[in-house]
Amino acid sequence: MKGGIECQTCGSKARPISVAYDRQRSIKQPRWRPLNVLLVMGDCTLIGLQPILVYISKVDGKFLFSPVSVNFLTEFMKVVFAIGMILWQARRQRPGERSLLSPSVILTAARKNYLLAVPACLYAINNYLKFIMQLYFNPATVKMLSNLKVLVIALLLKAIMKRRFTVMQWEALTLLLIGISVNQLHTTQQGTTALAVPIASVAYFYTLVFVTVPSLASVYNEYALKSQFDTSVHLQNFFLYAYGATFNFVAILVSTIYQGGTGFNLLEGHSKATMFLIINNAAQGVLSSFFYKYADTILKKYSSTVATIFTGLASAALFGHALTINFVLGVTIVFISMHQFFSSISKPQVEDTSYTHLEPMGRTLDKKDSSIGDLASVAHQEV
Amino acid sequence: MKGGIECQTCGSKARPISVAYDRQRSIKQPRWRPLNVLLVMGDCTLIGLQPILVYISKVDGKFLFSPVSVNFLTEFMKVVFAIGMILWQARRQRPGERSLLSPSVILTAARKNYLLAVPACLYAINNYLKFIMQLYFNPATVKMLSNLKVLVIALLLKAIMKRRFTVMQWEALTLLLIGISVNQLHTTQQGTTALAVPIASVAYFYTLVFVTVPSLASVYNEYALKSQFDTSVHLQNFFLYAYGATFNFVAILVSTIYQGGTGFNLLEGHSKATMFLIINNAAQGVLSSFFYKYADTILKKYSSTVATIFTGLASAALFGHALTINFVLGVTIVFISMHQFFSSISKPQVEDTSYTHLEPMGRTLDKKDSSIGDLASVAHQEV
Repeated sequence: MKGGIECQTCGSKARPISVAYDRQRSIKQPRWRPLNVLLVMGDCTLIGLQPILVYISKVDGKFLFSPVSVNFLTEFMKVVFAIGMILWQARRQRPGERSLLSPSVILTAARKNYLLAVPACLYAINNYLKFIMQLYFNPATVKMLSNLKVLVIALLLKAIMKRRFTVMQWEALTLLLIGISVNQLHTTQQGTTALAVPIASVAYFYTLVFVTVPSLASVYNEYALKSQFDTSVHLQNFFLYAYGATFNFVAILVSTIYQGGTGFNLLEGHSKATMFLIINNAAQGVLSSFFYKYADTILKKYSSTVATIFTGLASAALFGHALTINFVLGVTIVFISMHQFFSSISKPQVEDTSYTHLEPMGRTLDKKDSSIGDLASVAHQEV
Repeated sequence: MKGGIECQTCGSKARPISVAYDRQRSIKQPRWRPLNVLLVMGDCTLIGLQPILVYISKVDGKFLFSPVSVNFLTEFMKVVFAIGMILWQARRQRPGERSLLSPSVILTAARKNYLLAVPACLYAINNYLKFIMQLYFNPATVKMLSNLKVLVIALLLKAIMKRRFTVMQWEALTLLLIGISVNQLHTTQQGTTALAVPIASVAYFYTLVFVTVPSLASVYNEYALKSQFDTSVHLQNFFLYAYGATFNFVAILVSTIYQGGTGFNLLEGHSKATMFLIINNAAQGVLSSFFYKYADTILKKYSSTVATIFTGLASAALFGHALTINFVLGVTIVFISMHQFFSSISKPQVEDTSYTHLEPMGRTLDKKDSSIGDLASVAHQEV
């Protein structure tokens, strides 16, 4: 189907369209759909387990371990997981294939995937920022502000991944942001207070940083994973987490030295329950990589939101809570947003086609070539 | 442009499409757009004046007049306005045209427009229901429940006017409902309470009636006005309001006799200020007729919502209120909903066209004829 594609309606020959990102999507699409479902289901399960694991990890209602140690142990667990998967994949290789474990393969992959150091560094910075933010904003405000990530992620995807969104998709993302916020208005009890977040200029700056750093980390992660698509995802994970563990370890060292401490036991205060929590965190991280490589950051965002909704529903059913109006309204907005974002009618190409047909006659004639081009790209995607 | 319309892209001849409602829309469209803008602007002005007039109508913070008298005087004022407009229109008729004032013209029109008695009766019932509802629900709950009208109106338009809505448009209407509700959560302070509206089975019934009667009145009004499109809108208004005044007068009589009263003075407690309030109410009613005849009930609904938003913004600016998070979120939802509802991409025909282009090759070939038909109907609408 390369080169001259015929318009299904007109039968006219069309120029091939070469938007790498969209073509990659369209080629992978049939294989991706079931994978997407699996990813979302896995994500929902892991996120759903989280509150239970947090609950059983607490002793007398509080954590006995240092939060910094959780970050490091999570990164360490991810490295272990990635190594395990590489070994498993290497054993399943056919005879004759170049072994995943050969130093030259690993070194070449490491050289090609050096960009993974960027998201690893950003994630490490973000772990530190989270603590800083709590000094400037109360947790409810932090939660509210972090909803803005949805739009920042979309802007970064547009800038870094050259992704195109239709007006309808921008609206869908805005609705996602609003839906989550409406739901949170209940929990944070801010529903009836004025929009009086402490808005000093320094707070603006911190907000910008706080929202941009994790968004940039995710989008750049997606970019780095996809740009070396041929490298095994487990190998890519290994590099990412090795960088991550290193950065986190350096951070721990620096802060320990800076505070003049005598070092601390990483495993202090941990138990079997906290290990499950860390394994869950690590598994969520590994799953994210699959999202970023085989789907995208936006699907991950929707997935997390759906997981939160299911957790809310489950806890309402289990503990007999009544659902609030905010929850019902927020959830409805989120589901409408989801349908609109992924609906074929809101995809860029379809919109182009429709607009062309809708334009006044003169412009349509002028744009005839490009209209057929767009039409063909739709046909191309769907075949 | 009747009969064989050429597809702008293909140049192929197309079957004419005969969906009466859509054709009527498309023929009127060029004339309608500026009228729509005028209607919305007028509506916003009148609704915006309402709180000011209510404020100056109160003496020591309360009304001195009977609310029933307001309903009747408003209907009476509308009749006066309609007669005034008919006289004005009759004076502007060209010599040779049949006079609007000739008894035969009026009688024929009255016979043809007998259906207008239905909405007039429903509106009168609704005026009575409003009082009843306040016995069963608190005003905040009534306000919340009345938001459901948006969806009920759409269902009735589908049933009575055979209007088609796309999934996207249903979602847009749901968003409108949610947007208004999110905004009200603030005012009603219900944001943090559970969804524990008094839900006895009798309350369900009253809710259904309370939401359906005014919706049915509006939609049936639209149906009656449009089905006799050739009758002057002022003459139609005259009939509608004459029926309305009669029904309201009968209601007053019946309730006065039933309560064993000795009658009451309709003008008791009224002043110059309350007359302005009544004139404003009447003007809103007259404007509604123009909405229903030349636009539709949905545009009227969006218009009222936008008016409420502007009133909120104006009062915030005038009295220095801070805008609440709920207001900002609610307003954003409403504007997204509005764009999605009226956006060409979500109109039924456009959707059909896009879907056809997206379908796998086999089905496209099978449906080629109908696809061209749809395409032509789009072209037809836009010319």
